[in-house]
Amino acid sequence: MKKIINDPYRVVEDTLSGILKAFPHHLKGTEASPRVLIRRDAPVRGKVGIVTGGGSGHLPLFLGYVGPGLADAVAVGNVFSSPSAEDMLAAIRAAEAGAGVLQLFGNYTGDVMAFEMAAEMAEAEGIHVKRVLANDDVVSAPPQEVSRRRGIAGIFFAYKIAGGKAQAGASLPEVAETARKTVENTRSMGVALSPCTIPAVGHPNFSVADDEMELGMGIHGEPGLRRAKLKTASEIASIMVGQVLEDLPFQRGDRVAVLVNGLGATPMEELFIFYDAAYDLLRHQGIEIHRAFVGEYATSMEMAGCSISLLRLDDELQQMLDMPAYSPFLLQWR
Amino acid sequence: MKKIINDPYRVVEDTLSGILKAFPHHLKGTEASPRVLIRRDAPVRGKVGIVTGGGSGHLPLFLGYVGPGLADAVAVGNVFSSPSAEDMLAAIRAAEAGAGVLQLFGNYTGDVMAFEMAAEMAEAEGIHVKRVLANDDVVSAPPQEVSRRRGIAGIFFAYKIAGGKAQAGASLPEVAETARKTVENTRSMGVALSPCTIPAVGHPNFSVADDEMELGMGIHGEPGLRRAKLKTASEIASIMVGQVLEDLPFQRGDRVAVLVNGLGATPMEELFIFYDAAYDLLRHQGIEIHRAFVGEYATSMEMAGCSISLLRLDDELQQMLDMPAYSPFLLQWR
Repeated sequence: MKKIINDPYRVVEDTLSGILKAFPHHLKGTEASPRVLIRRDAPVRGKVGIVTGGGSGHLPLFLGYVGPGLADAVAVGNVFSSPSAEDMLAAIRAAEAGAGVLQLFGNYTGDVMAFEMAAEMAEAEGIHVKRVLANDDVVSAPPQEVSRRRGIAGIFFAYKIAGGKAQAGASLPEVAETARKTVENTRSMGVALSPCTIPAVGHPNFSVADDEMELGMGIHGEPGLRRAKLKTASEIASIMVGQVLEDLPFQRGDRVAVLVNGLGATPMEELFIFYDAAYDLLRHQGIEIHRAFVGEYATSMEMAGCSISLLRLDDELQQMLDMPAYSPFLLQWR
Repeated sequence: MKKIINDPYRVVEDTLSGILKAFPHHLKGTEASPRVLIRRDAPVRGKVGIVTGGGSGHLPLFLGYVGPGLADAVAVGNVFSSPSAEDMLAAIRAAEAGAGVLQLFGNYTGDVMAFEMAAEMAEAEGIHVKRVLANDDVVSAPPQEVSRRRGIAGIFFAYKIAGGKAQAGASLPEVAETARKTVENTRSMGVALSPCTIPAVGHPNFSVADDEMELGMGIHGEPGLRRAKLKTASEIASIMVGQVLEDLPFQRGDRVAVLVNGLGATPMEELFIFYDAAYDLLRHQGIEIHRAFVGEYATSMEMAGCSISLLRLDDELQQMLDMPAYSPFLLQWR
């Protein structure tokens, strides 16, 4: 295991410590738990709070999506592990500013269990909580079982849009509805070229042969659609764009936002080569591209590979996607 | 070689094509050369132009530093190779808006030769050109031979500050002087844990044993200070911060900006663990940290490792560093 760390069992603590030292004007810790970080100015009076959380090892997920125009608080789990219900409850309390709280997170069993429990405890305290689960990964379950699908990088769109909606002063039901609409119109698929290593485990979580890739692999190394010989960027894009398009399905004339996300070790050059091919495929299908995001938005530590996410836009989603937002972890938009 | 590409000999063309498709509101190509990209609104009337360039394989270097408050035009070479003098000349012409042009780039022999030739041709056309070379890598030559040192990630500070100065309406001599002052007060050092592969070569450019790192390695795999057993993040930070501090030297009471840069494959979590240790070391030495940047600012494709850059600030440099700037490739600052 080749990592720049101090202790495999202190990776999360040391990461959070470094983040708070790097961005003290943006984030702060909480007294309730060292695993709960919040916007420096949280709770934001009168605004619907947005809380998220999940396992570590995916930066900028989840911490990078806390900030103005994004989420307000985050509960941080161990590497690839769910946060506790107590920490999620602390995050909800920290985000509550009188207008209720939206829980927005990826559809993973451990997270769902812990966050539901936290929501119940918060409701018992009089905090209104709604929940929206991102489930954009098209290969994680068939279309007739969408509720079983996992969330991957496409959750970026939901953070951005729900964050914009809340910032604009919408009510909890409105923010939740817009987040739900975003999730319903988002589809993603990934490809992995190499594994990653959980520090406390010390060896890679799977292997991919030197001339192979795994189509549809999840961001924790969950098995994908199939192993295949490594193909060209254009061929890989064709497979992935095809599968994503037919799932919703996206149709000629649809207006979309595109996210090409690097899983960790893949150079930005390769992400643009992939986007170059994806752009041509989408245009050829008559899809209108409103804007593109290319970079690392949801990683699996040092895994090589990428994912593509498409969001079908309507006027509301487009307006909220284009609203200003800020996080020092993120590529800039304006 | 495991890369998401189409053709090892078309990596740069495909990358640039993807970039122009992804960010059409930000960048545009030129008629003069497919290897010259410019700000959408270049030339910016009355503003000193800033041009840069260098080999590919380092994104967000160099293209990511083109934008408002940054550079105006860039000449793009093959992977790890210098751009041509003709392309640099085309970049200068595209950036010239009546106030002259600053060439700002890293100190590599091929770049220097090509860019000097381009500057002479531009001067012959009546364009005033000044040149500032970044040479922040402390291990690339001893202190008495600073002019032989290579530029690495610390050039980020020079882009940001010279870009701010030009944006603020300064003259060419003023912008060049502020860029020179930035370079003179910047020091960096890197560490590599794994190699990278030039696509047209097809195999890694060197190897590092499973339990080793190379301290001081350059961003093209240039040999560093020494091979050593892989140490903890705190120990690595201690060696690197120590060497950087004593080089300028930085002194108790100095105010600095810090950049912890990922070389490509190193997860953001590890960069924050490294920053956590560096912060403590700097504070212990009485160094005041004005702000920190943590992320990928100058990469070597899929190389694992990181670098640290320190910039000693005065009031002018701090003000220019904090000015707004925009590029879709970059982490956001404000």
